[in-house]
Amino acid sequence: MNVVVQSIARAEPDVVAGLAECGVATVHEAQGRTGLLAPYMRPIYAGARIAGSAVTISVAPCDNWMIHVAIEQLKPGDVMVVAPTSPSDAGYFGDLLATSAKARGCIGLIIDAGVRDVRDLTEMGFPVWSKCVSAQGAVKETLGSVNVPVVCAGAYIEAGDVIVADDDGVCVVKRAEAAQALKAARARVANEEDKRKRFQAGELGLDMYKMRGRLAEKGLKYV
Amino acid sequence: MNVVVQSIARAEPDVVAGLAECGVATVHEAQGRTGLLAPYMRPIYAGARIAGSAVTISVAPCDNWMIHVAIEQLKPGDVMVVAPTSPSDAGYFGDLLATSAKARGCIGLIIDAGVRDVRDLTEMGFPVWSKCVSAQGAVKETLGSVNVPVVCAGAYIEAGDVIVADDDGVCVVKRAEAAQALKAARARVANEEDKRKRFQAGELGLDMYKMRGRLAEKGLKYV
Amino acid sequence: MNVVVQSIARAEPDVVAGLAECGVATVHEAQGRTGLLAPYMRPIYAGARIAGSAVTISVAPCDNWMIHVAIEQLKPGDVMVVAPTSPSDAGYFGDLLATSAKARGCIGLIIDAGVRDVRDLTEMGFPVWSKCVSAQGAVKETLGSVNVPVVCAGAYIEAGDVIVADDDGVCVVKRAEAAQALKAARARVANEEDKRKRFQAGELGLDMYKMRGRLAEKGLKYV
Amino acid sequence: MNVVVQSIARAEPDVVAGLAECGVATVHEAQGRTGLLAPYMRPIYAGARIAGSAVTISVAPCDNWMIHVAIEQLKPGDVMVVAPTSPSDAGYFGDLLATSAKARGCIGLIIDAGVRDVRDLTEMGFPVWSKCVSAQGAVKETLGSVNVPVVCAGAYIEAGDVIVADDDGVCVVKRAEAAQALKAARARVANEEDKRKRFQAGELGLDMYKMRGRLAEKGLKYV
Amino acid sequence: MNVVVQSIARAEPDVVAGLAECGVATVHEAQGRTGLLAPYMRPIYAGARIAGSAVTISVAPCDNWMIHVAIEQLKPGDVMVVAPTSPSDAGYFGDLLATSAKARGCIGLIIDAGVRDVRDLTEMGFPVWSKCVSAQGAVKETLGSVNVPVVCAGAYIEAGDVIVADDDGVCVVKRAEAAQALKAARARVANEEDKRKRFQAGELGLDMYKMRGRLAEKGLKYV
Amino acid sequence: MNVVVQSIARAEPDVVAGLAECGVATVHEAQGRTGLLAPYMRPIYAGARIAGSAVTISVAPCDNWMIHVAIEQLKPGDVMVVAPTSPSDAGYFGDLLATSAKARGCIGLIIDAGVRDVRDLTEMGFPVWSKCVSAQGAVKETLGSVNVPVVCAGAYIEAGDVIVADDDGVCVVKRAEAAQALKAARARVANEEDKRKRFQAGELGLDMYKMRGRLAEKGLKYV
Repeated sequence: MNVVVQSIARAEPDVVAGLAECGVATVHEAQGRTGLLAPYMRPIYAGARIAGSAVTISVAPCDNWMIHVAIEQLKPGDVMVVAPTSPSDAGYFGDLLATSAKARGCIGLIIDAGVRDVRDLTEMGFPVWSKCVSAQGAVKETLGSVNVPVVCAGAYIEAGDVIVADDDGVCVVKRAEAAQALKAARARVANEEDKRKRFQAGELGLDMYKMRGRLAEKGLKYV
Repeated sequence: MNVVVQSIARAEPDVVAGLAECGVATVHEAQGRTGLLAPYMRPIYAGARIAGSAVTISVAPCDNWMIHVAIEQLKPGDVMVVAPTSPSDAGYFGDLLATSAKARGCIGLIIDAGVRDVRDLTEMGFPVWSKCVSAQGAVKETLGSVNVPVVCAGAYIEAGDVIVADDDGVCVVKRAEAAQALKAARARVANEEDKRKRFQAGELGLDMYKMRGRLAEKGLKYV
Repeated sequence: MNVVVQSIARAEPDVVAGLAECGVATVHEAQGRTGLLAPYMRPIYAGARIAGSAVTISVAPCDNWMIHVAIEQLKPGDVMVVAPTSPSDAGYFGDLLATSAKARGCIGLIIDAGVRDVRDLTEMGFPVWSKCVSAQGAVKETLGSVNVPVVCAGAYIEAGDVIVADDDGVCVVKRAEAAQALKAARARVANEEDKRKRFQAGELGLDMYKMRGRLAEKGLKYV
Repeated sequence: MNVVVQSIARAEPDVVAGLAECGVATVHEAQGRTGLLAPYMRPIYAGARIAGSAVTISVAPCDNWMIHVAIEQLKPGDVMVVAPTSPSDAGYFGDLLATSAKARGCIGLIIDAGVRDVRDLTEMGFPVWSKCVSAQGAVKETLGSVNVPVVCAGAYIEAGDVIVADDDGVCVVKRAEAAQALKAARARVANEEDKRKRFQAGELGLDMYKMRGRLAEKGLKYV
Repeated sequence: MNVVVQSIARAEPDVVAGLAECGVATVHEAQGRTGLLAPYMRPIYAGARIAGSAVTISVAPCDNWMIHVAIEQLKPGDVMVVAPTSPSDAGYFGDLLATSAKARGCIGLIIDAGVRDVRDLTEMGFPVWSKCVSAQGAVKETLGSVNVPVVCAGAYIEAGDVIVADDDGVCVVKRAEAAQALKAARARVANEEDKRKRFQAGELGLDMYKMRGRLAEKGLKYV
Repeated sequence: MNVVVQSIARAEPDVVAGLAECGVATVHEAQGRTGLLAPYMRPIYAGARIAGSAVTISVAPCDNWMIHVAIEQLKPGDVMVVAPTSPSDAGYFGDLLATSAKARGCIGLIIDAGVRDVRDLTEMGFPVWSKCVSAQGAVKETLGSVNVPVVCAGAYIEAGDVIVADDDGVCVVKRAEAAQALKAARARVANEEDKRKRFQAGELGLDMYKMRGRLAEKGLKYV
C-alpha cells in the first residue's frame, strides 16, 4: 500500500543545528560508528555542510512522481531523502524541483540515484548528495510512499531522523537519539581540539594514546 | 577495413550554438529522452558548456594513433569523439594533442576512456568529458577509423552529429534532427521559465500539473 | 611477522624536487610507462603537485593503528603510502593524523582506501590521493608493518621509493632509478616544449612524427 | 551498545515451507515488489531453494567474532544473515563455521561480504548467498550484535523475518506479513500455471492481458 | 516516436547455422574483431551455443511492456535483444515470457539488464545472456520500440542482424555481412585445426608464426 | 628494458604438491593471511585445484605477444601468471595457446584480464582463473617481459613463487617460504580436522575457543 504520512516528529532545531556544526565524521564516531551512508554518496559541490530532518521518499525506479507529493510535506529545515526501490542511475531531480523544494524551506537533498542541472543547483546553493550525476529523465507513472522508513545507500532512515551531510558524506542520526548524539559529538570536538594542539606541537599518538606497551605485547618488532 | 572519411556534413552553426545554450538535460528531454551518454562520462573541470559537430574516432584499445589522423580532419567548432573498440582506462589524450586540436579550432573532447595532463587542459580551457583520468600512455601501432559510426559510452554517434556537453554529462543529437531538437528545446526552456517563477512563488507541482486526481485514482493514501 | 623498519634510504632531495616539477604523466612515460597506480586514486582537491620519499604502511583492513606507528618514522619531505591487506573503503585518516604527520614534515598521503575530514585537510593544504572519501572509522587492534614493500593500488612500492602525485594521479619511481628517471623526464619536458610550439603553429602530428607512410603501409584508406 | 537478543519470534514452519516452494521471484511480486536484496547476492552453487527464519548478525568489518556468538542462538530451520557495518569483501565464513551452524539445524547463510571453502560447503550441501568468494580471513576483536535489525545488501531485515533464497537471489518477508505473503504468492502461482499453458498454446500476452487498446492509445505505431 | 517495425529482413538460415557452429570468438576475429558485446554479458547456464536473427527491443528502464509487443513479431530461429534506454538491473524477463517466446520459435534472449526464474529457464533450455540475475519486477507503463536499431551492452544492433552467443559471450554480425563473415570464420576454423595439431606436437608459436626475428628487432633480451 | 629471464628457481615438487592439497584458504591463513589475489579472480569452471611454479608474464594492454614467448620457458608443473601493465578486459588467451602450453606441461593460467574459448578450455581440463571472460582479441605489437616480478590482481609475484588456486581463488607463496608455509598449512589442516569433529558433535566455538569471558569483558550484553 502506498501512503503519505503527513505528520512526523522532528528533532529540536538547536540539536539539529548543533549536529551540522559537528560534521559527519564526528557525529558518526559519537554515535558508535553507526549511521553512515555508503561512500559513493558525493556532494555535487564542495563546502556544503547541512543537518535537517528527513522527509523520506520511496520511489519506483526511474519515477519521480512521489517527489512532487513529498514537497507538499516539507517544513523549513527539512532534507529530502530519496530511495528508489531498485538501483537506478537516472536523474530524478533538477533545478525546477529544487526551486519548489527551496520555496518550502527545504535545505538539501540526499538521493541514492542521479541528479541533474548541477550547474543551476550549484548557483542556487541547493546542495545535493547523490550516487551520480545524470540527465536521464524520470517518469510519473507508479506510486511510492512518503515518510515511510527507507533504506538509502545502505542506511535505514525513518522520517524525522536527522540527516547530517558535508564533504565527508552523509550520516543519519535517529531522532530519539539526536540530543544524546549531539552531546557525545560536542565532547568529542572538545577533546579533539586539545589533541590537535598537542599533535601540532609534535607529540606523537604513540605517546598520547600510550600505545607503545600494547604494540610490544602484540609482538611488533623495530628493526 | 580502416578508413578516414574526409568529407562529412555538419549541422548549421546557429543550430549548434542554440543547442549549447539549452544544455544537456533540456536537449535530452526535448528529443524524447534519447541520446544521453552513460553517466560515468564526467567533465575534467566544472562549468564548461559546449556543442559542436562530432568527428568520430574509432581506436584500438590503448592506441591513440588515429587521434593524430583525425586532427587533420577537424574544422573550427568540431568536437572529437573517441571510442576504443574494447573497454579501456588508459590515457589517450594530453596537452600536446589538445594544443594541436585547438590550433585546428576543435572545442573539446568526448572520450570513453582516460585523459591526462588535466591541469594543463584546465589552464588551456580545453574541456574534456571522459570515463577517467589516467596518465597511462597509449601506443601507435594499430589502425582504426575516422568519421565512421561509433558507440561511445553507450550512445551511437555518427560523424557530424551534434554533441552537447556540460556539467550534467554528454548528449548526442542526430544531425538531421538538430534543428527540430533545438526548436523543441527552446520551447521547453521557455516553458520552464514560467514554471520556475510559479515554483518560486510557492505553487506546488501537485497543483501545477494537476496530479491530485490521478494520485487518488491510483490509490495513494494520506495518513 | 610485523616489523617497523626504522632506517630507510631516500633519494636525493633535488632529484625528488625535480620529479615533482615534471609531473606524473611525464615521469611515467620517462621510465618506460611503468609505476602508475590505478586511476581510481584521485586527489581530494585539485592543484596539488608533490614528490616525496615513501614511508610505506601495511595495515589490516579497517585498522589504522600502524599509521600512528609510522608517523614516528617520518622525515621532512616524506609521503605516507598506506595499503590495507584486504580491499577496504573505510576512512583510515583524518585531520588529527594529518596534523601529527605535518608536524613531522610529511607532505602528503597516498592511501588505497578512504580518507575523511577532507574539508579540514583541504584547508590545511595537506593533499591526499585516495580510493574514496569515507567517514567510516577504523580500529586499532591488529598489527601491520612499516617500511616493508607493499602493493598499493596495483603498484609495488618499497620504502624510500619516490612518489610523484598530481591531478593526473600517482606514480612511483624506484629509488635507485630516480636520478635516471629525472634525466629522462627532463629531456622529455624539453622535447615537448618544442613540439607544443609547433602544434600551436598548426603543424600536424602526422607530419611532425612522419606517420603518413606507415599509415598507408598498414592500409589506411582516405575516402 | 552491543547486544545479543536471545528470544525472537519466528514465523509458522508451514508458512516458511510454503514460501520456499513459491520461490524468490513470486514472493517478491506477491508482497508488492518489496524485500529484494541487491542482485549482487549470488548463490555459491546452483539449485538451492530455502526459506528460514533470520538470525541477524551485525559484524564489524573483517571481524567474524559475532558469528560464533550467533550460532548459539540458532534453532533448526534458521538462516544466518550477516551484515558488516562497513562494506567488505573479506571471507567471514568457511566450512568449520558451517559445520557448527549445521549441527544446530541452520539451513543456510546470507552474507553481504565474502565466503570461503566453497568446495566444502558445496559438498556439505550448505547453501550460501554472498557478495563474493574470498579466502581473506577475518579477526575476532570487535563486538557486534545478534538479532538486532540490520541492513543487508540494501534490505532492512529484523530477526525472525523470513528469508527466501534461490537461484534468483534473496528476498525478505516481514514475519508479521508472512502468512499473508504466502497466500498472495500461492494465488500467483496458481494464476501463473494457467497463463503458462495458454502461452505454451501460442496465445499472446498482447491478447491475454488485453494490451492492444492501451498501446494504441499511448501512440504505438505499427509500420 | 515509438514504432514496431513488422517486416524485417533476416540472414539465410544456413548462414546463421554456420555462424553458431563457429562460435563467438572465431566470428569476432573473422569480422576484424568487431561486434562483441561487453564482457559483463554472461549466460545463465553453461554450454548453450546459438545464432539467430535479432528482434530488437528498446524498452524504458524497468518497463517490459515492449517485450510482449515484440513476441508477436518473432519468427522461428529469432533471438530477442533487449536494451533499456537507461542502465538498469531489474528483471525484465522470466519463465512466462520465455514460454510465450519459445512457443513462437524464439531460441534465446540477450538482455542488457536482469533476468529471473533462471532455474525454470535452465530446465526449459531457454538460454539467456544478461547483465545480472534479478527478481525485481518491471512495469508496463511506457512505450518503447521494436525492431529499431539499439545499442545493447556497447554494441550497435539492427533488427535482422545475426546474434551469435556461447560461453564466451555475445557477438553481432551485420546481416549484409553474414555470409562473408561465415566464410572468413570457416577459413579460420580450418586454419586453427592445423595449428592445434602442431601445438599439440610441441611446436612453438615463436616458430610457427616466425616471431623470433621481429622480437629481436624490437629489442627483446634473453638473460 | 624488456627481458626474458630464462633460468628461474622453483620450489620442491613435493612442497608444491602439498600446498595444492591444503588449498587456498588454508595456505593463506598459514602464512599469516598474506598472498591472496583479489577476489574478482574466478575459475572458469568449478572443482579445479592446482599448485605450481609461477612463470610470470608482463604484457602490454591488449597485447598477448609475450605469452608466446613465455611458453618456451615453461617446465612441467608450471603455472602462467599474466599481468597487463594497464587494466584490461580483453581476451588474451584461448584454446590454441592452452594447447601449446599444455604440450609443455603447463597446468594452468592466472590472468588479471580476460580469457576466451572457455568451453574448449573446460573440455581440455585446462583451468584458468581470470578477471573476466572475453572474446576480444589481442594484438602482437609491443614487447613485455617474462619472469620479472609482476603485480597480478593486487599481489606481488616473482617467477618461481608457488601459485595455489582452487574454487576459493588464488594465493601466492614466496618460493623461499614454501616449505615453511606447507608445514604451517598441514598443522592447520590437522587442527581443523579435530575441530570439525567437535563442531559436528554440537560443541560451540564460544566454548571451544573460550570466548565467553572476553566477550563479557568487552561488554557484550545478553538480553
